[in-house]
Amino acid sequence: MGVIKRSEVRAAQARTAELFARAGIVMTPEEVAGIEVATFGLGDLEKEGLELVTYVNNDRYCAKELVLFPYQTCPEHLHPPVGDDPGKTETFRCRSGKVLLYVEGEPTERVQARLPEGSEAYYTVFHEVELLPGRQYTIPPGTKHWFQAGADGAIVSEFSSTSRDEYDIFTDPRIERIPVIVED
Amino acid sequence: MGVIKRSEVRAAQARTAELFARAGIVMTPEEVAGIEVATFGLGDLEKEGLELVTYVNNDRYCAKELVLFPYQTCPEHLHPPVGDDPGKTETFRCRSGKVLLYVEGEPTERVQARLPEGSEAYYTVFHEVELLPGRQYTIPPGTKHWFQAGADGAIVSEFSSTSRDEYDIFTDPRIERIPVIVED
Repeated sequence: MGVIKRSEVRAAQARTAELFARAGIVMTPEEVAGIEVATFGLGDLEKEGLELVTYVNNDRYCAKELVLFPYQTCPEHLHPPVGDDPGKTETFRCRSGKVLLYVEGEPTERVQARLPEGSEAYYTVFHEVELLPGRQYTIPPGTKHWFQAGADGAIVSEFSSTSRDEYDIFTDPRIERIPVIVED
Repeated sequence: MGVIKRSEVRAAQARTAELFARAGIVMTPEEVAGIEVATFGLGDLEKEGLELVTYVNNDRYCAKELVLFPYQTCPEHLHPPVGDDPGKTETFRCRSGKVLLYVEGEPTERVQARLPEGSEAYYTVFHEVELLPGRQYTIPPGTKHWFQAGADGAIVSEFSSTSRDEYDIFTDPRIERIPVIVED
């Protein structure tokens, strides 16, 4: 737990780069080499994980491109206040594939997502927002949320206030945001 | 001067929608219907103008998709401080085509752009930044800048702090940011 093999990171980066290319999203070689593979320390990247490129993150705004493999889930978390910052506000815009986003609010009766096996207890908000290409949703600060791709995976643009990922609060206490990469 | 015909707006919107579609950028029907066509009141949209869709503009951040037709130029301007806001910071990321961006700083010896005829006097900064797909540049607040597409036009993602376009200061005193649309 809490570690990921270097070869697994490289494979996920290559797969992510291929998905960007197929969607016509051009990345520089440096961006491809720096694709972030977030496993959240949970051991099964395919189940719970996220791939991303951060275009810009300054003291005013942030923009990222997120990739989810088929049915891959970004675990439930929220963005708390940090100092003078009331917490990150973020807008998710689906570019390709399908994303099921869950936020606080009236629970949807029959959610489409499949809860990641073994982690069911750590998913607690079930107000479903379905994002198809061209559709977007803005999440206020301090709001619990999680999201899962459909059968074809998904690419999501994230526009937000400053990102301070290290302060994110995950519902699952086993999660470690900073990955430990081990050589094969 | 200062007006644009409804039919010209519609034609520019249709052309912009086609460019988004060709680049694989999905817009909702509402977004297509609301494509902003900025003529800057200068009368020749093909020469000086800009087409855009604003995805989100809240009190923290803003994201837009900008389109330039071949050799179309967004006139020189800057984003001043507004109240507590030090002025808009913006990041341009080229998605397709080529953009020549000019900012304050050491003038480039032979600039690639063609100055819009009749408006030459209102272009005063010539530090050239060439943006090809996947390349980006961040413009600090209060910095004069202008940009022009290459022969194939361009699509540019803009990530920024809050947009307050109505406060933009243009070098060309003839410019009116808010268009007057007349029926044919």
